[in-house]
Amino acid sequence: MQLKDVFVSAPGKAILHGEHAVVHGKVALAVSLNMRTYLHLKGTTTGNVCINLPNIDTFLCWDLAELKQLVAYYCGKREEMKRLDAELIRRLREFIGVTNGNLDTCNMAILAFLYIYLSLFGSGELPSLTVTVWSELPTGTGLGSSAAYSVCLAAALLCASGTIPTPLKEGDNTARWCQEDLELINSWAFQGEMIIHGNPSGVDNAVGTWGGMLRFLAGKIIPLSRVPLLRILLTNTRVPRSTKVLVAGVKDKINKYPSIMTPVLDSVDAISCTCEKVLSEMTCEPITGEHYNILEELIDINQHHLNVMGVGHPSLDILCRVTLTKGLHSKLTGAGGGGCGITLLRPETDSSVVQATVQDLKDCGFDCWETSIGGPGVQQHSPLSVKEEVLEILNRY
Amino acid sequence: MQLKDVFVSAPGKAILHGEHAVVHGKVALAVSLNMRTYLHLKGTTTGNVCINLPNIDTFLCWDLAELKQLVAYYCGKREEMKRLDAELIRRLREFIGVTNGNLDTCNMAILAFLYIYLSLFGSGELPSLTVTVWSELPTGTGLGSSAAYSVCLAAALLCASGTIPTPLKEGDNTARWCQEDLELINSWAFQGEMIIHGNPSGVDNAVGTWGGMLRFLAGKIIPLSRVPLLRILLTNTRVPRSTKVLVAGVKDKINKYPSIMTPVLDSVDAISCTCEKVLSEMTCEPITGEHYNILEELIDINQHHLNVMGVGHPSLDILCRVTLTKGLHSKLTGAGGGGCGITLLRPETDSSVVQATVQDLKDCGFDCWETSIGGPGVQQHSPLSVKEEVLEILNRY
Repeated sequence: MQLKDVFVSAPGKAILHGEHAVVHGKVALAVSLNMRTYLHLKGTTTGNVCINLPNIDTFLCWDLAELKQLVAYYCGKREEMKRLDAELIRRLREFIGVTNGNLDTCNMAILAFLYIYLSLFGSGELPSLTVTVWSELPTGTGLGSSAAYSVCLAAALLCASGTIPTPLKEGDNTARWCQEDLELINSWAFQGEMIIHGNPSGVDNAVGTWGGMLRFLAGKIIPLSRVPLLRILLTNTRVPRSTKVLVAGVKDKINKYPSIMTPVLDSVDAISCTCEKVLSEMTCEPITGEHYNILEELIDINQHHLNVMGVGHPSLDILCRVTLTKGLHSKLTGAGGGGCGITLLRPETDSSVVQATVQDLKDCGFDCWETSIGGPGVQQHSPLSVKEEVLEILNRY
Repeated sequence: MQLKDVFVSAPGKAILHGEHAVVHGKVALAVSLNMRTYLHLKGTTTGNVCINLPNIDTFLCWDLAELKQLVAYYCGKREEMKRLDAELIRRLREFIGVTNGNLDTCNMAILAFLYIYLSLFGSGELPSLTVTVWSELPTGTGLGSSAAYSVCLAAALLCASGTIPTPLKEGDNTARWCQEDLELINSWAFQGEMIIHGNPSGVDNAVGTWGGMLRFLAGKIIPLSRVPLLRILLTNTRVPRSTKVLVAGVKDKINKYPSIMTPVLDSVDAISCTCEKVLSEMTCEPITGEHYNILEELIDINQHHLNVMGVGHPSLDILCRVTLTKGLHSKLTGAGGGGCGITLLRPETDSSVVQATVQDLKDCGFDCWETSIGGPGVQQHSPLSVKEEVLEILNRY
């Protein structure tokens, strides 16, 4: 039986407020970033399973008979999804030749793909297929590129296996799944994240699945019903940083100055709660300039607080300064110490201003994209609804 | 009887931590700034009282008989010093021709001088004398120049009137008064401040009198016994600002975002307390690099908090950035929104680095002085202990 083609996409993630504070029990707001990862699953009759990841120059094929060996020990469909199947992981690592040592991006991506594929199909007949993934997200910058990848894999493979339906109706451009199916996509995406990250928070795959905005507090993830779509610039300073070192630095500073730092975390918590309230108001009353004034003030205050925590960086100061000369407000997003920043655009911000700002930021040596936050989570696409340049890449292999 | 010559000086003031937060019931630390105001009181036989204020181009003389008229209603030495003598104020305003409208710096300085002079001498024979004052402090920048002036006036005139002794012994360069005499100087200086400022906090004259550092909390002023002398740069951005507008802006922001701003004030309070503790440790244990590390971190954190309060200014950002390129840490001092900033120098900071930094700041259009904080309060000088260039000015008139 040849599988039907499926096109899916999932968004990246940005932290709007609460990065670092969340480690210390405060609220964080994670939002979908409309820089998406696209996946094309194509049924084939080659008797092979192929994966093409042109972003990381990875193009691999395996013989179905070979793959079948890996799940010979299976006696039924796996249902337990809270933990990884350690035996399958062990076999897969051996299969792709990484029995010891750390995995690189390429190996982790393959491991996640084969794991989900074999888990979903291993108890029956393995289908012949080719998966091609293309992402607009830079990797390793805290924008949830691995989660968007895992969400796409989960959605496409769950559809291919018939576990969930393909929601796209004739004539639709895009379609989303019902809540129950999204839960399932999210669970399988989380497994992919566990393979890639070891101990993920679950926020990234939840944002990739549900989109919009999520409230994250003490390990609990609550998708927020309605948020406005906000125009932003996403800037990658291209300054590399270690999240682990930055998190440890904040912890040290809190330990060194508890009476000074604890109130700062409380203030960040209040920023997240205020922001959530304002965004919620923006969906149920006419959006005014004052809504944006508040969002800008919250961005500025939080950026100062993040500097107090010691996770700022001269490149981020430059980002804030350059955008402020155009009347735009920026903060770092994620770990800081370089990495990425977001700049809020107002609905009325003229595209000439946006273009000039993007150019100024590129002149600083940064990557910069005009995009939006708060958009939809994972969705199925009709091929026609996929941007032409992305479709061209997805169909190339 | 001809009065003996007296040379006195009093320091300016800087807020080390807690500006603005103090308005909302938090601790502030005020320190003496070793940019001083010098006063020379010279006994004469001209039958005139003369005052020379070359900083503000003010040179005036009055006939003793004329002045005597102003206190004809006196029947004894004034002892009550909690309130101003409204009748004397009224007569003085009339005398110098400012019965209505606001007083300029020059008129306020004259009013304060004549008020203290007549209050101290009015019940007896008015002495013939010339007072010359020269200040290293820029006026109107929140550095306590009016308080330093009032403290000098009070100390010199109290000595001249015999109310307190001249503490200088033969062969001494400088000398200070006992605690009781300092209390008296401070009280009279506060009267001068009331004339000049209307409703002063009393912090500036207390710093001018006691020097070192003062803890200011909910209107209570507590001089701290021992603090180290710290080298600093004092920079005047020359950006004019209105303290009243800035204070109102902070209040508005607290009212708009109470849950966000209240913790920031708490954090500033903790910064002041931590700073006080570190400075106190520095006087009783060997000073280490770590002491300075902490002082620098507190400066950085507080500067971010002041930006959160909305009292930063691009000129202050430039100050911080320029000094940081030399590894030096700065914050605004006082009202912010321009005005002045302080930069901490380490004991080991090379004078070439200091000179280069001063030059860089001057190139930004700022005034900049290398000075120190935590030095002595009001003191009497032997003429030889007054810097030559200051002595030359004081003796010119």
